[in-house]
Amino acid sequence: MGESLNGLKRSIMCGNLKENHVGNEFTVMGWVQRKRNLGALVFVDLRDTTGLLQVVFGEEINVEAFNKAELLKSEYCVAITGELVLRESPNNNLPTGKVELLGKSIKILSESETPAILIKENLDTDESIRLKYRYLDLRRPDMQRIFKIRHKVSKVVRDFLDEENFLELETPMLTKSTPEGARDYLVPSRNYPSMFYALPQSPQLFKQLLMVSGFDKYFQIAKCFRDEDLRANRQPEFTQIDLEMSFVDTEDVISMNEKLLQRVFKEVGNIDISLPIKRMPYKEAMDRYGSDKPDTRFDLEIVDISQVVKDTEFAAFKGAIENGGSVRGIKVPGQAGMGRKQVDKLTDFVKKYKAKGLAWIAYKEDEIKSPILKFLKEEEVTGILSSFEAEKGDLILIVADTNKVVYQSLGALRIDVAKKLDLIDNSRFDFLWVTEFPLVSYNEEEDRYQAEHHPFTMPFEEDLQYLETDPGRVRSNTYDIVLNGEELGGGSIRIHDTQLQERMFKVLGFTEESAWERFGFLLDAFKFGPPPHGGLAYGLDRMVMFLAGTENIKDVIAFPKNQNAFCPLTEAPNVVDEKQLTELGVKIIKENKE
Amino acid sequence: MGESLNGLKRSIMCGNLKENHVGNEFTVMGWVQRKRNLGALVFVDLRDTTGLLQVVFGEEINVEAFNKAELLKSEYCVAITGELVLRESPNNNLPTGKVELLGKSIKILSESETPAILIKENLDTDESIRLKYRYLDLRRPDMQRIFKIRHKVSKVVRDFLDEENFLELETPMLTKSTPEGARDYLVPSRNYPSMFYALPQSPQLFKQLLMVSGFDKYFQIAKCFRDEDLRANRQPEFTQIDLEMSFVDTEDVISMNEKLLQRVFKEVGNIDISLPIKRMPYKEAMDRYGSDKPDTRFDLEIVDISQVVKDTEFAAFKGAIENGGSVRGIKVPGQAGMGRKQVDKLTDFVKKYKAKGLAWIAYKEDEIKSPILKFLKEEEVTGILSSFEAEKGDLILIVADTNKVVYQSLGALRIDVAKKLDLIDNSRFDFLWVTEFPLVSYNEEEDRYQAEHHPFTMPFEEDLQYLETDPGRVRSNTYDIVLNGEELGGGSIRIHDTQLQERMFKVLGFTEESAWERFGFLLDAFKFGPPPHGGLAYGLDRMVMFLAGTENIKDVIAFPKNQNAFCPLTEAPNVVDEKQLTELGVKIIKENKE
Repeated sequence: MGESLNGLKRSIMCGNLKENHVGNEFTVMGWVQRKRNLGALVFVDLRDTTGLLQVVFGEEINVEAFNKAELLKSEYCVAITGELVLRESPNNNLPTGKVELLGKSIKILSESETPAILIKENLDTDESIRLKYRYLDLRRPDMQRIFKIRHKVSKVVRDFLDEENFLELETPMLTKSTPEGARDYLVPSRNYPSMFYALPQSPQLFKQLLMVSGFDKYFQIAKCFRDEDLRANRQPEFTQIDLEMSFVDTEDVISMNEKLLQRVFKEVGNIDISLPIKRMPYKEAMDRYGSDKPDTRFDLEIVDISQVVKDTEFAAFKGAIENGGSVRGIKVPGQAGMGRKQVDKLTDFVKKYKAKGLAWIAYKEDEIKSPILKFLKEEEVTGILSSFEAEKGDLILIVADTNKVVYQSLGALRIDVAKKLDLIDNSRFDFLWVTEFPLVSYNEEEDRYQAEHHPFTMPFEEDLQYLETDPGRVRSNTYDIVLNGEELGGGSIRIHDTQLQERMFKVLGFTEESAWERFGFLLDAFKFGPPPHGGLAYGLDRMVMFLAGTENIKDVIAFPKNQNAFCPLTEAPNVVDEKQLTELGVKIIKENKE
Repeated sequence: MGESLNGLKRSIMCGNLKENHVGNEFTVMGWVQRKRNLGALVFVDLRDTTGLLQVVFGEEINVEAFNKAELLKSEYCVAITGELVLRESPNNNLPTGKVELLGKSIKILSESETPAILIKENLDTDESIRLKYRYLDLRRPDMQRIFKIRHKVSKVVRDFLDEENFLELETPMLTKSTPEGARDYLVPSRNYPSMFYALPQSPQLFKQLLMVSGFDKYFQIAKCFRDEDLRANRQPEFTQIDLEMSFVDTEDVISMNEKLLQRVFKEVGNIDISLPIKRMPYKEAMDRYGSDKPDTRFDLEIVDISQVVKDTEFAAFKGAIENGGSVRGIKVPGQAGMGRKQVDKLTDFVKKYKAKGLAWIAYKEDEIKSPILKFLKEEEVTGILSSFEAEKGDLILIVADTNKVVYQSLGALRIDVAKKLDLIDNSRFDFLWVTEFPLVSYNEEEDRYQAEHHPFTMPFEEDLQYLETDPGRVRSNTYDIVLNGEELGGGSIRIHDTQLQERMFKVLGFTEESAWERFGFLLDAFKFGPPPHGGLAYGLDRMVMFLAGTENIKDVIAFPKNQNAFCPLTEAPNVVDEKQLTELGVKIIKENKE
C-alpha cells in the first residue's frame, strides 16, 4: 500500500500556480506525467486536472525527497511539498511554464504499472483498448476538457431554465412502453411475474401529464433508452434536455429556446448566435436542400427542372415525371472540368441512395459537354442552364426519379461534393429552425401512416379537414433546431384534446381499444381541463459534441458502450445467477453464440 | 375541442398581481378553482401554479364574457383578459386578496369533467385514487409547493458543488450487477442473449473509477434502483445526491458537506445549521441511544448498569450478563406515576424487538415501587438509582439481554416514550455525524461477515492488524449524517489499493476468482496510481421530505409506485408482446397470479 496522506492537505492545484505565488510553499497532488533524471537533478512534470507543473528535486534541495523522486515512474500518484521559484528557462508552451516547485518532501500515495495507454492528447489508440482502460483514457487532457464542457452545458441550461421559472421534475425510469417507434429495453417485474417495465425512450407522456398537472414549465436532463442496432453516434442510453411549457404556441417555444441556445453557446463555447434564428418550412428545406436538416453553411442548392423538361423525349427524365417524380439537380460552380473518374464516383454515390443514375452537363468554355446532350432538344439544354443560372465553367448534376429518391440522393450529394471540394467553413455555426413538418408520412413497408414526429403532435388547424381523407397533406406545429446539418433538437405543440388525440391514433392505425390500452391514462387526463402545451427536446450528447468539437459520441460519455451495446470495462451485459431469473419468473431460451 | 390561444399571450401569473398593478389590463391563464354565480355577477377564483386570483364577470363589465363565465365549471382551463381593480372587500387570507380582475373576455381552452379528487390542500383521499389521478393530485397547492422545494434543493446543491469545482458526470444506467446487497433490476440484452444488464443500486464503482480517472471532484444527482419488498418510505427507484473527492480524508469530506448542508437548508428552508455539526463515534451512539442514527432532539439516554448489578442474584440480570449481554435502561423523568396499563404497553413494545421483558422502578415521593425490588439487594437498588441520577418522581425502564437486543429495544423505546410524552421539539433540526462504524458485522443467518457500509470502505489503519483475525473489531473511516434520528446520507474514505481490497473481499467470503470476476475492473484500475479518495451520498427524496415537512416519500416523487412497485396511473409493469421476448431470448415461466 502507498503512503497515507496522514492529514497532509493539498494547498493549490498545479495549473493555478503563477509568478505571483513565487517564494511561498505549496503542497500539490497528482500524477507523474514524465520524469527526467539528470543526475544531480530529477525533473518531474506533475499533472492534475488543471494542468502540468514542473517539480525539481535535487540533493541540495532535499536529499530524502531527491532519493525518493528517483523511484518515481509514469502515473505514480504523489503529494509533493516545496517552494515555488521562477524557472531559469521558462517554457512558454505551458501555462505554468514560468515557475517550478523545488521539491522538499514527497509522498508516494500509490504506484502504477506501465499504463496500458499513453496519457496524452489526441491519442489514436484502438477504441476497444481505450474503452477497456477507460479510467486511463479519461486522464488524457482532451477528455478532461470535454467533460468540463459537458458539466458546463448542463449547468448553464439549468441556470437559464431556473431563471425562466422552469421546474426540474424527475419522471420515472421504470415505466410503460413508450410509443417512439424504437425497441424498448424491458425490465422483468418480480412482483408481477409475466409483466415488464420498460425504460423510457423519452419522458414525452410524463411531461405532458406534468402540464396537465399545472406545473406550467418543466424541464429535465433525462436518461433515455433505445434498444436499436447502433449506428455510429448512437448509444443505447443517451441524455436528453427535455422541456415543456403550458399556454404556449410555436412562437413562445421557439423564442424561449433561442434565448437558451444563445446563452449556452456563448457561455460554454464563446459562440455568438444572432437572433432570431432563420426558419424554413419543411417543404422548402426539402426542395432547396433535399433534407429536413439542411447544412446551410454552403450553397449547392437543389433546382427543380421538371417544368423545363416536362415535354422531353429523354426517357429517363420523361419516365420520372410521368411516374409522379421529378427532375432536379445541383450546380457545382467551376467544376466543368471535373474528370470522368470523379464524376463516376459521384454516380456511384447517388446510387447508394437508390438513384438510377446521375446525369451531368459540363458548361465548358468552348462547348457544352454531356452524355445526355443527344437526347435533349436545344431549348431544353438552354432552359436547364438558365434554370441553374449556370455560367461557363459550371458543372450540373441531375437526378430524375421519385421525389423521395431525388431528395435523398441530391441531399446527400451536395454534402459529399461540398466536403470533397472543401466548400464548408468549419468555423461557422449555422442554426436553422425547420418547421411545419408533415404530421404523418406513409410507411410503404408496413403499408400505413406513421407519425413524422410522434402521435401527440398538434396538426395545423386549417389542415384538420384532411386528417382522415388525406393525412399526408396535414402539416403540424413542429420545429426542429438544426445546426450545421445535424438535428440538435426537435419539438412540437401537442394535442390536448381527447377526441383529436383519438382521431390521430386512428390515422396511425390504432384500434380504439388498443389506443386506450396503451395511452388511456393520457386520454383520461385530457378530460380534466388540459392546458395548451408544447415543448422541445435536445440531444445533450450531440450538443456537447458540437461544443467540444468531436464527431464521436463516445468521447462525450464517460462510460459508453461499444457498437454491440457492450461495455469493455465492466463487461456488461453479463451472466446472472439462475436464482435471480427464477425469482423474476423468466427463463433463457436462446444461448449467447459468441 | 376548446378554443385556441390564437396568438393570445399570458401577460402575468395570477399570484403576482398586486395593488401596484391596479388600473392595467392583464391576461391570465389557469384553472377554475371555484365559481360563484350571484345573478348579476359571476365570481371565479382562477388558479395557476403561483396562486389564486379573483375574477369578476358582470353584464356591465362585458356581457359576452359574462355569459361565457356562466358556463364555467371546476377545473375548466381558461384564458381571461381584464382590468385589475382594488377589491371592495379585501380577502386577507389570499396574497392577491386586495385586488380582482374585471373579466372583459374569456377563452375556454378546455373543459373538465368533475375532477376525481378535490384540488385542495391536505387532501385525505385514498392514496390509490391519488396515484391513479396523479395529474389532478399534483394540481393541489401543497404538491406544487413540494416540487418547487425539490427543484430548489437540486439547484442549490448543483450551484454549491459547481462553485467548489465538482464536475457533474453521468454514470451508466445499463451496467453490471452492483454489490450493495440488495436485489438488482435486470435488463435482458438482445445483442447477447442469456446476458443481462443491471440497473445501478448506486454509482459507487463508477465514481471511484472517476477518481482513478483524475476528475478530482465528482457529483451526480443520480437515479438508483433496488428491487426490494417495499417498506414504507422506500421506492424501487430513488434519487441520490452522490459525490466523491480525491486526495481527501474524513475531515475534508465532512467539512465540505457541512458547508453544503448549511447552504441547502438555509436557502431552501431558511433553517440555520451551526457548524461544525456534532460528531459521535458509532460505539458512543449505540451506548447512549441504542442506535446508529440517534434522534438527539430529546434525552432519555441509555445508561449501562451492568457493573452495578454484576453480582446480583436476580436471574434475569444475572443471566444476561453471564451470556455476554448487558443490563441497561432509560430514565423517564416525572413518570413514576405511570399507570400499569401504560407500562404493560411499553413491555409489549420492547418484546417486538425480542426483549424478554421490561423491568421498571418507580421512584415515588414516599416509596420505591418495582416488581423486581424483592430480587435486588438494597445497595443494588441504590446503585441503580444513582447510576441514572434519578430523582423522586422518575421512572426507570430496564432491559437485560444480549447487547443487540438491549440496543434495539431501548433505542426504539426511548423514541416511543418520547413521542407518547410529546418530548420531541418538532421545530428542531438536529444534525449529527456518526463516525467510526465497524468495518463489518456478523450475519448470523448467513454465517459470514458482511460489510457494514460496503466492501470498498477503508479500514482504520491501526486496526488493519485485526482484519483477518478479528474483523468485527476493525473500525472504518465512515461518516453518516443523521438528522432527527433519520439517516440523511452516508459515506466513507475508500480503499484504493488492490491488495487491501482483495483482503477485504476475502473477509467478506469472496474467493479470489469470484472477486476478480465481479470487481476485476476496479482491482485492475487500482494498479495504475489510484488517488486516495472518499465521498458521500444523500437520499435526495429524504432530504426533500425534511424540507417539505412530509413523512411520505410518495409526496416528493412526481410519479411514484405503490407498495407493490406498481404505477396505478400508467399501469406499469404490464404485459409485452411475445415477439419482444423472443427477440430478447427469454420466456415467461411463471404467470402472474393476480
